[in-house]
Amino acid sequence: MRHFISVDQFTEDEIQDLLQTAEHYRMGGSPEFSKPLFAANLFFEPSTRTKMSFTMAQKRLGIETLDFHMDTSSTKKGETLYDTARTMQAIGADLLVIRHASDTWSNELQQKLSIPIINAGAGKAEHPTQCMLDLLTIYQEFARFSGLKIVIAGDIRHSRVAQSNAKALKQLGADVYLCAPPGFQDKSLDFPYVTMDEAAEISDVLMLLRIQHERHQGESGSSDDYLKNYGLTKARERKMRNHSIILHPAPVNRGVEIDSDLVECRRSRIFKQMQNGVYVRMAVIARMLQEWGMTGEDTIKKYQPVLASR
Amino acid sequence: MRHFISVDQFTEDEIQDLLQTAEHYRMGGSPEFSKPLFAANLFFEPSTRTKMSFTMAQKRLGIETLDFHMDTSSTKKGETLYDTARTMQAIGADLLVIRHASDTWSNELQQKLSIPIINAGAGKAEHPTQCMLDLLTIYQEFARFSGLKIVIAGDIRHSRVAQSNAKALKQLGADVYLCAPPGFQDKSLDFPYVTMDEAAEISDVLMLLRIQHERHQGESGSSDDYLKNYGLTKARERKMRNHSIILHPAPVNRGVEIDSDLVECRRSRIFKQMQNGVYVRMAVIARMLQEWGMTGEDTIKKYQPVLASR
Amino acid sequence: MRHFISVDQFTEDEIQDLLQTAEHYRMGGSPEFSKPLFAANLFFEPSTRTKMSFTMAQKRLGIETLDFHMDTSSTKKGETLYDTARTMQAIGADLLVIRHASDTWSNELQQKLSIPIINAGAGKAEHPTQCMLDLLTIYQEFARFSGLKIVIAGDIRHSRVAQSNAKALKQLGADVYLCAPPGFQDKSLDFPYVTMDEAAEISDVLMLLRIQHERHQGESGSSDDYLKNYGLTKARERKMRNHSIILHPAPVNRGVEIDSDLVECRRSRIFKQMQNGVYVRMAVIARMLQEWGMTGEDTIKKYQPVLASR
Repeated sequence: MRHFISVDQFTEDEIQDLLQTAEHYRMGGSPEFSKPLFAANLFFEPSTRTKMSFTMAQKRLGIETLDFHMDTSSTKKGETLYDTARTMQAIGADLLVIRHASDTWSNELQQKLSIPIINAGAGKAEHPTQCMLDLLTIYQEFARFSGLKIVIAGDIRHSRVAQSNAKALKQLGADVYLCAPPGFQDKSLDFPYVTMDEAAEISDVLMLLRIQHERHQGESGSSDDYLKNYGLTKARERKMRNHSIILHPAPVNRGVEIDSDLVECRRSRIFKQMQNGVYVRMAVIARMLQEWGMTGEDTIKKYQPVLASR
Repeated sequence: MRHFISVDQFTEDEIQDLLQTAEHYRMGGSPEFSKPLFAANLFFEPSTRTKMSFTMAQKRLGIETLDFHMDTSSTKKGETLYDTARTMQAIGADLLVIRHASDTWSNELQQKLSIPIINAGAGKAEHPTQCMLDLLTIYQEFARFSGLKIVIAGDIRHSRVAQSNAKALKQLGADVYLCAPPGFQDKSLDFPYVTMDEAAEISDVLMLLRIQHERHQGESGSSDDYLKNYGLTKARERKMRNHSIILHPAPVNRGVEIDSDLVECRRSRIFKQMQNGVYVRMAVIARMLQEWGMTGEDTIKKYQPVLASR
Repeated sequence: MRHFISVDQFTEDEIQDLLQTAEHYRMGGSPEFSKPLFAANLFFEPSTRTKMSFTMAQKRLGIETLDFHMDTSSTKKGETLYDTARTMQAIGADLLVIRHASDTWSNELQQKLSIPIINAGAGKAEHPTQCMLDLLTIYQEFARFSGLKIVIAGDIRHSRVAQSNAKALKQLGADVYLCAPPGFQDKSLDFPYVTMDEAAEISDVLMLLRIQHERHQGESGSSDDYLKNYGLTKARERKMRNHSIILHPAPVNRGVEIDSDLVECRRSRIFKQMQNGVYVRMAVIARMLQEWGMTGEDTIKKYQPVLASR
């Protein structure tokens, strides 16, 4: 694991290890680095929470950040992503965090750069730190994955992120179900589909996906219809099991995927997910820097994860 | 005072207290915080000086800043201000500084967030740290407010900021006058109007307001006419009392509100105001963090303010 | 040397001194400052590498940065460059780094500001830290300038940067040649022109210039034609002397000024230049702060520069 690109690359042990490290940081732990470190955050697509979350993770680790602004950059002069990334390495970045619209941007960079790269979003293909923070949030709640009933609901077909998450959760022992309008289903996947009513009733974890209005204008009907047919209404929430929780990657379309009043209900872990995102990214960054010899093996101590108080 | 939203919320004692704290910081004082702190600066409207001033204030206090860029943010994906602000809290911000075009953005946030919020501009309604830096600049000059003749000149009608300042100055004992073209007057206010010639002659403090060209195209006549009729010309400046000073919130429209040659004349405190802005914001931030228990009562020591050397 | 504006202002001794200081920093040296310092970076034109490079230089020196974003600034409200810069001084910046489209922006600022200004690009006129990093890269390679054959190839006519570099290199004892398409030549310059084939054969250092597509649409023919007639093809590279090196200020137009495969060939010092840019800017910043008394004379120790290992 020299670069952090895809959730498919992890073994179960590696995932458990990252979750434990994240918990360690949540408890106040911090690693030591052998020299001052600099991270360059190259976001070629709009982002608030992911970019802020990575920045916070870096600052909490004592890593200086170099902030790249796509609107004022040389990419406007036609520079390739590789040349921009290679420039950051030349200038002294020890670590690159990249979000780019291309699904495959990391291929060339992984081969040619000599600093670790962390994927903060690759088109529609991968967003592995989002997956990790979902896993951490579930683990904090249940202290296990095996046997949990997890329903992923929304635009499955166009979301390879959801597909990766489904595979990772299955690998960890969860029972994964999908829920989607007909146009958003992908029948080639080896997971059973349920209705939204069934989803509410059976799930331990209900993972709502964000509707990408900008991508699917019209396909999913009006916002009201979506909520009624495929979103989490108050009526459905009342049918959920007592201990069940709600996840959503945010930003939330209030009143579309979920009733606005439920965004901060007792089951919602939506803002908890964001909080966990910082700890997960701290863990991922520290792990990468350790792989590249920028911190000693013993500086990342493992905690026995504990069940988080809500 | 759990959030810093409006100048109307302060008692005279609170204002004096903030001014003294600001002077303390200007003399080199600094508070101590019980843990590393992070401020998120959410500016949804263009700003150089206010944003830079807050950033400098935070850095001088040893607070890390999270810089939000509206052009590359999730608000482009339709996220509400509340959800963006709540996200920042989840990510770990200890303090929010917000400028937004809405006059009433703070209502929902004050009720629902559990970190202090500082208003850096609410539409046309409030800009309380600007008021505080005006007060500090006057106080440094005269060591009192009572009995000072202060003329506020410009677009009174559309500037609730000016109206708030007028009220605060009156509360502190100053004699406040207004000066404005007929279309910019607000007759409902309980302050006497004077001509610009009278303003120059009687004022201890002449507070010029910025003409918002973008908002009032045409209403105020040409720029040359404005300067001649309602601006501070060299001829008028010569009629000012020996000790009188000029304030302007900047950015200045040179040759409109004020003759370009007067921007840095001996009476002008325009750049002094900007300098004071940093100390005032340090004081406001420290006071808020103290209210929320992030710093000990004794760490913000009060100085007896001294008359500033010019 | 109170401000760092033009390469023409330096004596040979000053250049040597800066190069030695840069080498000192490359070896891990660092200066000490008498107080916490703040740099404001005002970039009014797009830039990745120069802005990131200055930021990195400042962070490595322990200087806090204030980051200015032209898209969200008061210059949109019509503020002059002087007023913006003067504001930064008032807010507490100890140092300004400025890039602006005007060739002559520094004239007024040099006279009126009381903090050091570093030119990070003045229209088409000057980019002196780029010149310094070119000099450092050459010096690391050959440990001298005298007698070196240096060919500057590209749009000489519209590049006063190239013209300044040519004069500086001549002053340091190098034999300077130029190479350009007829429309890009400037016959008033006192340097001999060579063909690109000759350039490849005779040069110790081949300095390629970037074609500004946006400025010279059509004048230089198609990209393919440019590479064939005036760019560095693989065939020409094979004719270069064994020890000769290639420089380019970047961003590179791959396949125009240079064959894409040569960008990271054994002769290329293109990414080395970027690396050197950080050390050169550290030296320039430290030297300016020293001139202004913000650091002790003895804190900038001089190293005997050594020939860099490639």
